[in-house]
Amino acid sequence: MNLGTLKIRISHQADTAMGPGKADLLDAIHELGSISAAAKHMGMSYRRAWELVDAMNNCFSKPLVSTRQSGGTQNGAQVTELGLQILKSYRSLLNKTQSACQQELEEITRHLSPTD
Amino acid sequence: MNLGTLKIRISHQADTAMGPGKADLLDAIHELGSISAAAKHMGMSYRRAWELVDAMNNCFSKPLVSTRQSGGTQNGAQVTELGLQILKSYRSLLNKTQSACQQELEEITRHLSPTD
Repeated sequence: MNLGTLKIRISHQADTAMGPGKADLLDAIHELGSISAAAKHMGMSYRRAWELVDAMNNCFSKPLVSTRQSGGTQNGAQVTELGLQILKSYRSLLNKTQSACQQELEEITRHLSPTD
Repeated sequence: MNLGTLKIRISHQADTAMGPGKADLLDAIHELGSISAAAKHMGMSYRRAWELVDAMNNCFSKPLVSTRQSGGTQNGAQVTELGLQILKSYRSLLNKTQSACQQELEEITRHLSPTD
């Protein structure tokens, strides 16, 4: 069987507040401690990663990522407590959907055309 | 409370096989019986509607929309039996997700920034 991929986004006005790419970026920032390292890890430009972080931060009442200018040469970034909380809720939403909607997902994906 | 919008897509390779825009377009074609009328109803170009239909049809093993060239001046389109079935499964997936994930959706949306 050919499995389609379930993608869930939470939109806020014209923006995506949380979605698969933003969640993965948050994970990478949390793990690596900087936006540039996270961008490199995900194969995206630093500019693009910044845009995604900026969009997320603007969608929420408080930032999901905070940046700190240290005295040294390295700037760091960290996922805030709210960021971790949103990430946890988002992943839980994905898991619950996959469990609750197994039948529908199978009904749709079994009709997808064969992959190359 | 500021409600974010839940958007669910089923991806197939690099394409979206089913998502909010495609589902609404299928509804409109089913109701209006032509791609051009559906496009007009949704405020999109005929070309854009055709591209979405073409993408959907290519994602599935059989078309979700069939077109017929009648002898008259009007060309028609109809949502196939498979199209209606996929649409039904997709809507059911959305409803079930909203019920199963009420807590997570509230946890995320209550932190969204105030709307303008």
